[in-house]
Amino acid sequence: MKHKRRAVTVGDVPGTLRFVGERKQEHIRIQLINYNEDIFEKREIESAGESAPFITSDTVSWINVDGLHDTGPIREIGDLFSIHPLLLEDIVNTEQRPKVEEAESLVMIVLKMLTYDNDMETVESEQVSLIVKDRSLISFQEKEGDVFSGIRERLEKNRGRIRKMGADYLAYSLIDAIVDNYFLILEKLGARIENLEDAVLNDVDRNTAHEIHRLKRELFVLRRSIWPLRDVIGTFLREEIPVFGKQTLLFMKDVQDHILQIIDWVEMYRDLVSGLLDTHLSNMSNRMNSVMKVLTIIATIFIPLTFIAGIYGMNFNHMPELGYRLGYPIVLLAMGAIGAAMVAVFKLKKWL
Amino acid sequence: MKHKRRAVTVGDVPGTLRFVGERKQEHIRIQLINYNEDIFEKREIESAGESAPFITSDTVSWINVDGLHDTGPIREIGDLFSIHPLLLEDIVNTEQRPKVEEAESLVMIVLKMLTYDNDMETVESEQVSLIVKDRSLISFQEKEGDVFSGIRERLEKNRGRIRKMGADYLAYSLIDAIVDNYFLILEKLGARIENLEDAVLNDVDRNTAHEIHRLKRELFVLRRSIWPLRDVIGTFLREEIPVFGKQTLLFMKDVQDHILQIIDWVEMYRDLVSGLLDTHLSNMSNRMNSVMKVLTIIATIFIPLTFIAGIYGMNFNHMPELGYRLGYPIVLLAMGAIGAAMVAVFKLKKWL
Amino acid sequence: MKHKRRAVTVGDVPGTLRFVGERKQEHIRIQLINYNEDIFEKREIESAGESAPFITSDTVSWINVDGLHDTGPIREIGDLFSIHPLLLEDIVNTEQRPKVEEAESLVMIVLKMLTYDNDMETVESEQVSLIVKDRSLISFQEKEGDVFSGIRERLEKNRGRIRKMGADYLAYSLIDAIVDNYFLILEKLGARIENLEDAVLNDVDRNTAHEIHRLKRELFVLRRSIWPLRDVIGTFLREEIPVFGKQTLLFMKDVQDHILQIIDWVEMYRDLVSGLLDTHLSNMSNRMNSVMKVLTIIATIFIPLTFIAGIYGMNFNHMPELGYRLGYPIVLLAMGAIGAAMVAVFKLKKWL
Amino acid sequence: MKHKRRAVTVGDVPGTLRFVGERKQEHIRIQLINYNEDIFEKREIESAGESAPFITSDTVSWINVDGLHDTGPIREIGDLFSIHPLLLEDIVNTEQRPKVEEAESLVMIVLKMLTYDNDMETVESEQVSLIVKDRSLISFQEKEGDVFSGIRERLEKNRGRIRKMGADYLAYSLIDAIVDNYFLILEKLGARIENLEDAVLNDVDRNTAHEIHRLKRELFVLRRSIWPLRDVIGTFLREEIPVFGKQTLLFMKDVQDHILQIIDWVEMYRDLVSGLLDTHLSNMSNRMNSVMKVLTIIATIFIPLTFIAGIYGMNFNHMPELGYRLGYPIVLLAMGAIGAAMVAVFKLKKWL
Amino acid sequence: MKHKRRAVTVGDVPGTLRFVGERKQEHIRIQLINYNEDIFEKREIESAGESAPFITSDTVSWINVDGLHDTGPIREIGDLFSIHPLLLEDIVNTEQRPKVEEAESLVMIVLKMLTYDNDMETVESEQVSLIVKDRSLISFQEKEGDVFSGIRERLEKNRGRIRKMGADYLAYSLIDAIVDNYFLILEKLGARIENLEDAVLNDVDRNTAHEIHRLKRELFVLRRSIWPLRDVIGTFLREEIPVFGKQTLLFMKDVQDHILQIIDWVEMYRDLVSGLLDTHLSNMSNRMNSVMKVLTIIATIFIPLTFIAGIYGMNFNHMPELGYRLGYPIVLLAMGAIGAAMVAVFKLKKWL
Repeated sequence: MKHKRRAVTVGDVPGTLRFVGERKQEHIRIQLINYNEDIFEKREIESAGESAPFITSDTVSWINVDGLHDTGPIREIGDLFSIHPLLLEDIVNTEQRPKVEEAESLVMIVLKMLTYDNDMETVESEQVSLIVKDRSLISFQEKEGDVFSGIRERLEKNRGRIRKMGADYLAYSLIDAIVDNYFLILEKLGARIENLEDAVLNDVDRNTAHEIHRLKRELFVLRRSIWPLRDVIGTFLREEIPVFGKQTLLFMKDVQDHILQIIDWVEMYRDLVSGLLDTHLSNMSNRMNSVMKVLTIIATIFIPLTFIAGIYGMNFNHMPELGYRLGYPIVLLAMGAIGAAMVAVFKLKKWL
Repeated sequence: MKHKRRAVTVGDVPGTLRFVGERKQEHIRIQLINYNEDIFEKREIESAGESAPFITSDTVSWINVDGLHDTGPIREIGDLFSIHPLLLEDIVNTEQRPKVEEAESLVMIVLKMLTYDNDMETVESEQVSLIVKDRSLISFQEKEGDVFSGIRERLEKNRGRIRKMGADYLAYSLIDAIVDNYFLILEKLGARIENLEDAVLNDVDRNTAHEIHRLKRELFVLRRSIWPLRDVIGTFLREEIPVFGKQTLLFMKDVQDHILQIIDWVEMYRDLVSGLLDTHLSNMSNRMNSVMKVLTIIATIFIPLTFIAGIYGMNFNHMPELGYRLGYPIVLLAMGAIGAAMVAVFKLKKWL
Repeated sequence: MKHKRRAVTVGDVPGTLRFVGERKQEHIRIQLINYNEDIFEKREIESAGESAPFITSDTVSWINVDGLHDTGPIREIGDLFSIHPLLLEDIVNTEQRPKVEEAESLVMIVLKMLTYDNDMETVESEQVSLIVKDRSLISFQEKEGDVFSGIRERLEKNRGRIRKMGADYLAYSLIDAIVDNYFLILEKLGARIENLEDAVLNDVDRNTAHEIHRLKRELFVLRRSIWPLRDVIGTFLREEIPVFGKQTLLFMKDVQDHILQIIDWVEMYRDLVSGLLDTHLSNMSNRMNSVMKVLTIIATIFIPLTFIAGIYGMNFNHMPELGYRLGYPIVLLAMGAIGAAMVAVFKLKKWL
Repeated sequence: MKHKRRAVTVGDVPGTLRFVGERKQEHIRIQLINYNEDIFEKREIESAGESAPFITSDTVSWINVDGLHDTGPIREIGDLFSIHPLLLEDIVNTEQRPKVEEAESLVMIVLKMLTYDNDMETVESEQVSLIVKDRSLISFQEKEGDVFSGIRERLEKNRGRIRKMGADYLAYSLIDAIVDNYFLILEKLGARIENLEDAVLNDVDRNTAHEIHRLKRELFVLRRSIWPLRDVIGTFLREEIPVFGKQTLLFMKDVQDHILQIIDWVEMYRDLVSGLLDTHLSNMSNRMNSVMKVLTIIATIFIPLTFIAGIYGMNFNHMPELGYRLGYPIVLLAMGAIGAAMVAVFKLKKWL
Repeated sequence: MKHKRRAVTVGDVPGTLRFVGERKQEHIRIQLINYNEDIFEKREIESAGESAPFITSDTVSWINVDGLHDTGPIREIGDLFSIHPLLLEDIVNTEQRPKVEEAESLVMIVLKMLTYDNDMETVESEQVSLIVKDRSLISFQEKEGDVFSGIRERLEKNRGRIRKMGADYLAYSLIDAIVDNYFLILEKLGARIENLEDAVLNDVDRNTAHEIHRLKRELFVLRRSIWPLRDVIGTFLREEIPVFGKQTLLFMKDVQDHILQIIDWVEMYRDLVSGLLDTHLSNMSNRMNSVMKVLTIIATIFIPLTFIAGIYGMNFNHMPELGYRLGYPIVLLAMGAIGAAMVAVFKLKKWL
């Protein structure tokens, strides 16, 4: 969740295409899927130009671009679909907030695809930009690998209504897949929170404060991805985007419901994690208390007794008690009595 | 309050009917109640088809479905009442937030029925979905057992106005019963908070931090059920749902009042519980203070005295005091004086 | 501030008249005051029916009902003034939030009359419901004793404009009296907060955390009474209630100002009380620090010295120092020097 | 910032003129300034009646009243300018929130003039009420002494545009002077916060918690004065007050900017002061830590050594070591070694 | 981030031009850049008058003024462009919040240019005011040195579209440069937060509380600069400022996106920094716990043993054990056993 360097672009001409982000992949890979109710065609293409013949056809074209650091092909696509330079800039700058932009006849949606790195136990974020224009959808991803395999399968096997619908429904399907995937992240974080909860409530001392801090950061990433998305979908639902038909909006409403659910959970998790720190601190304070009690009890019992022993260890010539026959046992008894009295007091104070 | 797995549906075709939740019951049970001012009929039916003859009649039909894991009968009902697949999906996915959806000529209301598990001292949540269409109401529950027995009795014995009104009034009655039941939950939690309060204020050390954490979780469940409900009822009150008549809305207003009362209490309980943690920490700090004082007083009095005894326990050949006749009593007196002075200082410092 | 049992009514037919609350009084007492500019008449009546002749007359009738547990007379009044059963239900359920309801030709206002119990140092809450219809006002209280004596006196002695105005002005006067009385509560709580502040700032150890907790609860009661009231009065000021004339609304604006003042104070008191806990914890930490310092200083000075004394208290046959003529004074001097060095170090560290 | 007694008026007839506040001055003093572009006249007047001839003239009249406890003259002014009794009541009740009231042809603005008492280091609040009617402005203050001397000078010496403008501009000037003066308060508080910050960051132990509490209270006073003022000025800027001309509103906008600046600072100061308490607690915890370390090091080194010395101080007849020639030096060396080992361990643990 | 003295102006005639702020530069420096698509001219001018011939020409004129303390030249420019005195007052008072003002035919935008002082590790704030009127833009800065060098270069070398556009696009470019620069500040603060995070999580004790306090202050500065800016740009986007053309607004939208991103980061950083303090306090508490444990273990083991040694160091004549042959070894063994038992108990309690 490092704040990637945007600073390099300070002073750039606005609309300059400069990749801002972590370079995640060597080569750009472009995949073209072309379909309608009857046709399905999938192929890797070398340059955006190859897709040109399909754009005007009556099929739906989905052009998926993996890798954003090489701005050449992206500019080429931009020219082909006449995408405004500022939008292209947003696509290659992977530090965007989720947003929707409408310009002329096309719509751009920017969102964050999250994946969970099981080894590092961190949430990884990748920016996905969707451009919908007429019957074409272009998706830009930072690197290969996504959560869209289910959709490709549905397209290929013609399951559900997807092959009967337009590019707007495809866009909805991609957004839905990304949002659905957030539930997976939630589940992973939920499991970690539960583990932490067990540890804290049973007062097992793991690196609690550290783990709480890390969970907070992960929840931040999720939160930053999901909150602006609510407004994005809200824009669609207010029917401000004519490209999206009524029928697709019905499904969009479903996505909005999921987003609200996720927000609910994220906020609840944040509260829970904060509360766990309090509980943890209370536990530590508790433990300190019991340590102190032990020290105090031991010290309070033996310090006075040691003092008495010290007195009769003094070497004065004239200490009459030392000559008494019963001096020693009497002192021992007195010590025992004092010790017992102390213990009784502690019992009374409920320290024992 | 575990976050149930929604992840299984990632990549599903939207509108796919797949049960998401905890399987709470083996068989689906369907009950049909059919009534108007003169007629009352109650029977168990095997399949939704059996209810078909009643739907178009001039009686009000209440079809109650217990158990959601077997999607077959639910799809059948969906077909019978022409319910949109996305709505059916919401019904079987028991992770919904409370919401109201209007589609064509029907209204769907999703809410959470809460029950209090006295043994585990936890709040259990069950999703109830209501579909109102013309003179029919279909209610879907996760498992048998609900808070509607009072309503069934009123229907059977024709008490109150319920037999004279339509399906909208029945829907109101069910919602009212669910919301009323929240007061029972509130009362249980209130009693636990009061107990905790007593324990904390009287500084009895139970597992306070633990209990506070648990209460917070229970309040979360309640909160997540009630907050979205306010908007749901608000939608009705703004008269956006034509199925609900003016007369029923008057009663709905009453439900809204109850919801606001519950929200008030939940928020207050949350504040109280948070405050209790502070008080508890303050208590613990207090107790630590008093433990430390005891230790300090004992140590501070006896450590110097023991040192003096140590001096006269040294074995130097030439220690003139040792030969003095009054050496011993003088030292004892000096020790007494030092001890008394210490005590006086502590009294002055208000430590005793 | 116990959450009174509403649960008993779960499953009741809506509009059922069942008293919910603490039974505060044995018998219902009804008082009728009848007045216009020239006439003033006050009498106790047995049943609501007795008031019937006055309702249609051109005088203003104020019917005050003390005691709500016996629902018979209340139903009678409800019939007489044709009050909707749901409104009557609100009147006898004393767990309402402050609210205003308009129905047909009458207005119901529910508010909380607070009184301060000086012995228990708690805020007591009593529900007052006002029904205004034409030239009649019916007020329902839980028990005898209220804050309206000033108004009765003004009516009787014809002071101010009250005898010249209608039932709406009388309603305003009652609301004003209740709100004005909140200032008395504020003052009591303010005095307690000031005492607590003195105690905390001067670090006198009273039962601070306990008292803070109690003050928070009292402020909660006040807050729950006053916040919804702001919306209630706002409803009037937006001129949505035709029964209330322009002239009376001018006075209502004044009440709204008072409410805003009270809210300001309540919020400030809440902040202050929270801040006091922080200060208290800081004080306790401070005190602990100083206790620890004393212990550390005493122990750090004497433990090494005692060790030296211990060395020369050993009984080895061959300990040359023991035979030195100046051994004893040298050791004493060395001890003195070590002690002085310790003290110097502490001075340097600013511990003394 | 004591909550002054409003309680005395409970039960009063609304519109009763009763002074509520601290009596700050013995006699009421009325000053009349009369001016237009050519004329300037200033005089003390005995009764409001004396100002009557000026009111209808084409000059602007500024009547300033110092002292509010004697309600006679205030009622006289009220009659002269036909001010509604409720407005007069607001003027003499000095517990108002800042507000603006429009009634018939006049406007009343109530605000708080703050002064900083350098000796007590507290913020003093005085209520100022302005009545603007036609070409007259009447200002009511609790006592003599204000922040308007600059305005009087500008009027007298005819500097700026003030003599060319009407009573609305004069009102603006007075408000501006009061708001500008808040910056002085901010500066004083800012200086105190900076001092406190220095003390806390350098860990100088002044009465930090106490001072933080006091600063919070002062910021409360400022906040309570400035927040409602924003709405007051907002009312003007929405052009809801016809008495105020467009040209004056341009200047009002400037006042609004100042208010927003002050609010920004107040909120920041509040955050800073809260943060300081955290830092202070962290410091105290730090210091405790270092005190504890010293104690632990000393005790941990010497307690075992003293034990060894104690062993060889026992008086058993048969303790072979005591007879060894090298017993004593060996034990001394062993003790030295143990002590050195302890120190080494502490070094390793980074405690030294 | 010191609150600069505004107090000097209390009582000034509104519209008085008095420099309020820190004097950052001796002489005022005025630079004139004059350009259109074909022409580019840059020169230093002595007085504003020199720029007069260019204003009406068909080129775009950018007049940049460095230094605000000498109000003479600023008044001169004000006269030349007929800027309202209140706007001029805002320019020289460097304590403004970011804002936009439209007056007659010109627009004034006030913003904060932030720079990061690497030595002091603080964020420095400088006020920049932009006046756009027809084809002229006047920018006022507190001192020389800015973030506009990239823009000057683009103008000179005719890169991008800037030479083809009007003064509104130039204004956009300047705002964009200032906002872009905030990312640099973010990065610096982000790096410091990361360092602090490392230190805290690895429990390295740097001056953590101090550094947290400083970071909070820096974030405050950033926050105060960026929050109001959102509203400023929002004003443009709502197309309320006719001077700004549609084409420029498209770019403005981009700036708004950046602002939202920055706000997101600032809020996240604030949360993170607050969380770090909690973690730090938890660490300190942890460390204290372990220190206390060591002390307790050592003391608890040796205090009883020392007591036993003390007993046999007493000088009673009749202590039979002293005469036993095996007395000494038995006591030693007993001591060893007690010590071992203690260690075992601690192991059981998981303290070792």
